[in-house]
Amino acid sequence: MTAALQPAEPALATDRARRGGRAGKRAAGSAAFDQPAFRQLKIPFTPTKLLSDDELESIHLASLRVLKEIGVDVLHDEARRIMKAHGADVREGEVRVRFDADMILDLISHAPSEFTIHARNPAHDLRFGGNNTIFAQMASAPNCSDLDGGRRPGNQRDYRNFLKLAQMHNILQITGGYPVEPIDIHPSVRHLECIRDLAILTDKPFHAYSLGKERNLDGIEIARIARGISREQMMEEPSLFTIINTNSPLKLDVPMMEGIIQMSSMGQIVFVTPFTLSGAMAPVTIAGALVLQNAEALAGIAFTQMVRKGAPVGYGGFTSNVDMKSGAPAFGTPEYMKAQLVGGQLARRYNLPYRTSNTCAANTVDAQAAYESVFSLWGVIQGGGNFMMHGAGWLEGGLRCSYEKMILDIDLLQMVAEFLTPLDLSEDALAVDAIRDVGPGGHFFGTPHTQSRYKTAFYSPILSDWRNFETWAEAGSPTAMEKANRVWKERLASYEEPYMDPAIREELDAFVDRRIAEGGAPTDF
Amino acid sequence: MTAALQPAEPALATDRARRGGRAGKRAAGSAAFDQPAFRQLKIPFTPTKLLSDDELESIHLASLRVLKEIGVDVLHDEARRIMKAHGADVREGEVRVRFDADMILDLISHAPSEFTIHARNPAHDLRFGGNNTIFAQMASAPNCSDLDGGRRPGNQRDYRNFLKLAQMHNILQITGGYPVEPIDIHPSVRHLECIRDLAILTDKPFHAYSLGKERNLDGIEIARIARGISREQMMEEPSLFTIINTNSPLKLDVPMMEGIIQMSSMGQIVFVTPFTLSGAMAPVTIAGALVLQNAEALAGIAFTQMVRKGAPVGYGGFTSNVDMKSGAPAFGTPEYMKAQLVGGQLARRYNLPYRTSNTCAANTVDAQAAYESVFSLWGVIQGGGNFMMHGAGWLEGGLRCSYEKMILDIDLLQMVAEFLTPLDLSEDALAVDAIRDVGPGGHFFGTPHTQSRYKTAFYSPILSDWRNFETWAEAGSPTAMEKANRVWKERLASYEEPYMDPAIREELDAFVDRRIAEGGAPTDF
Repeated sequence: MTAALQPAEPALATDRARRGGRAGKRAAGSAAFDQPAFRQLKIPFTPTKLLSDDELESIHLASLRVLKEIGVDVLHDEARRIMKAHGADVREGEVRVRFDADMILDLISHAPSEFTIHARNPAHDLRFGGNNTIFAQMASAPNCSDLDGGRRPGNQRDYRNFLKLAQMHNILQITGGYPVEPIDIHPSVRHLECIRDLAILTDKPFHAYSLGKERNLDGIEIARIARGISREQMMEEPSLFTIINTNSPLKLDVPMMEGIIQMSSMGQIVFVTPFTLSGAMAPVTIAGALVLQNAEALAGIAFTQMVRKGAPVGYGGFTSNVDMKSGAPAFGTPEYMKAQLVGGQLARRYNLPYRTSNTCAANTVDAQAAYESVFSLWGVIQGGGNFMMHGAGWLEGGLRCSYEKMILDIDLLQMVAEFLTPLDLSEDALAVDAIRDVGPGGHFFGTPHTQSRYKTAFYSPILSDWRNFETWAEAGSPTAMEKANRVWKERLASYEEPYMDPAIREELDAFVDRRIAEGGAPTDF
Repeated sequence: MTAALQPAEPALATDRARRGGRAGKRAAGSAAFDQPAFRQLKIPFTPTKLLSDDELESIHLASLRVLKEIGVDVLHDEARRIMKAHGADVREGEVRVRFDADMILDLISHAPSEFTIHARNPAHDLRFGGNNTIFAQMASAPNCSDLDGGRRPGNQRDYRNFLKLAQMHNILQITGGYPVEPIDIHPSVRHLECIRDLAILTDKPFHAYSLGKERNLDGIEIARIARGISREQMMEEPSLFTIINTNSPLKLDVPMMEGIIQMSSMGQIVFVTPFTLSGAMAPVTIAGALVLQNAEALAGIAFTQMVRKGAPVGYGGFTSNVDMKSGAPAFGTPEYMKAQLVGGQLARRYNLPYRTSNTCAANTVDAQAAYESVFSLWGVIQGGGNFMMHGAGWLEGGLRCSYEKMILDIDLLQMVAEFLTPLDLSEDALAVDAIRDVGPGGHFFGTPHTQSRYKTAFYSPILSDWRNFETWAEAGSPTAMEKANRVWKERLASYEEPYMDPAIREELDAFVDRRIAEGGAPTDF
């Protein structure tokens, strides 16, 4: 199936309005909601260099020493054989593998600096790397919550609701995994049900967890069927991604190595992301945690290139600190921001797309949730993040996906997108004539220059309450969280499933149903 | 009086711990509160260039066209005479003044790119310009509020409370005016009571409003007496600043011009800050609003150099947008951030210190207050802001100073300061040996490398609640605002007045009491 055969549906209609100038700015996926069109976002300025080149090199060199002198425990037998074949120091009867700097640097030099992920709706294809930036919905929360129903374990109904919200908001260009884990589906077939939902309820690119070979292969096959393409085309056009979290410190486990083997050998996208919590699984110094992050990331990224030279792979950073009083992980902190900026510098040093995240540790959608998230977004954008995981919904250190936080984050991400939209500096926008017409002491409110632009001049926020105090107080002094509660319910009620060719739907269901009947995948991972 | 004669008091004790490395980091002004030491903050990285040099030049050139072709209405007769004497196009019987580009650029080239403001406690002297950044308490709110007492008009008690909070928090390096307007003091003597309080209750640098010659002169005299210096020394050592807001569009009124004449002629600091609300007093395009901002700022800054070549002056930016549905001003928006970054580029083009602000339009200390403020802080820091006005307390578009927002902002500013603190990249911080000691699969929590650092490794927030959900829920699910309410009351209770030499106090009181007896200043401004 090609784009030409695909009938127009809401997402495509929205894309037609993709703005050349301000015209398309207010195009809405739903009449009830004013949102910017789906588009490939770009960061228009140079990312911030927190470290000098020499300082950055000290982290790079220290991480190469870690790989050479200490090494990494690789628990997957086949992975160790592949590493040995590529010249790594693998000793009989030992899981420890040590790597030479030259070998690592030679391998990662084969990784592409930019690549595209293909969606079943080609208007939703996305570009990783360069100055592109991509925002994903949050992933992998065990719990979810809303203001009415409170906090509860993940389940299929909430899982599907979140996918619908991801589909209908253009600013969420991609999903990042299961926004909440639907524990009411048996683990052996959960991936089949969940990935089928991703393929049907959304037409944006998606992720498969690396939890055993079967799950990777099922994910790749569902993505292929949904796009209606051959295995050969799939090899050339990445259509699925996986996140590989190393087991910090310095362990690469069986499912993760298996995930790289399956995904990279089939040309699909891998983001290697150590989760290096400074003071817990990583040194208490941020510099030390970054050394560990970099060593682990380089080992994983180098392995993708052993599996297949040129396989698309990205550099993931997830260094934060813990609360040293309790050991609880902290997010959106100053230390997290510094690590975000340095992570970006490292990824660019290796010419790799950079993945980072929008996180917070708050237990409710209060000021803390907002400031930790915006500090994270600051780190993402100024760090030159090419891919923001957990862009919307993340609460409670990732233990919960919140409906209200989802709306708050969508608003925040839309604001960031507007911030990234270049200023119009045309003669007309510079407005010398308009200033002349108004003159000293005048007012611009009713002038033709204003009248012709005011509807689309500024970003119109979802949540911000700009009423004066008296009007706001008379309305019951609502907080942003209360407004978010109303908004997500209105939004969800207007969801429309994106079009899918009936023949593709039939093939998809046949595959998933057969695999479920076969029992799915082992659950002893 | 010199620093050597001044006995150590809490603020100085704190300064002794100024950190060389991490040691002084947790020095506290009060035993009950863990805060970083007072220090001159610096932005350690290159500010973000939102515009290319060519694009920036288009704004610069358009603003020079505005000054040449349209001109500015100058309502102050003496100011027009001064302008004419310096070659401006001033016509008999007209208030309109037009300026040549060369004249403007020549004048502003005499302004210093960096200068120091002196406090009565020399440990609190601060440097404007370069890569220095200074955080001020909010100013000029007509109302104040706290969670217990609600919203109320400003009064002397709240005014003094806010000054005490400014004094005891090291991150507020300066006050920016009256945090709240004490309307229970008669306007004729309000400036005398208020500036005396600034000089007594705080030992940090402060501001005087430009609302008529007498108020400027009284402010300068109080600052001089508090420092115990001569008029000659005062001329060489700026010890007071004033904010000059132009009347946009393109008007310079009597009190503002008078303020520049008094302050600049006596060597005190002026920040010229147009308040150019895009869509209201300025064009609806952000580029156009910036053209207007720049034209007005250049006119005011050039005038300071006509009054006295070399007078210390800064470039202020305060361009934001309005809600086009209601006309209400909006703050902390994506448009505001863009204007903050471009404002910084313009100020640096003219080699002038750059003033910007921490603002929001929220009516309560909810997620909106936090995200609008952190977006503002993002703009301040990435814009290379040398001076952040309204750093703490600002709510409701500046109509209200909030006790809880003050604590929230202090926490946010402390986080920003930590973000700006360079990473330790010593061999020991890179931690290769610590990583070796722990090895693959280990844990860093109890290691000597962690044990020797954990107390000061990370910023310890005031408000962030990092407890797990169950513990937090059992504690009654508190929000950040509720915690802030408890904190400010505890803090205020531990305030100690900074030491002042009794002879200086006597001189100060004698001056202020005499001026009050004389009737203060006219109230017909």
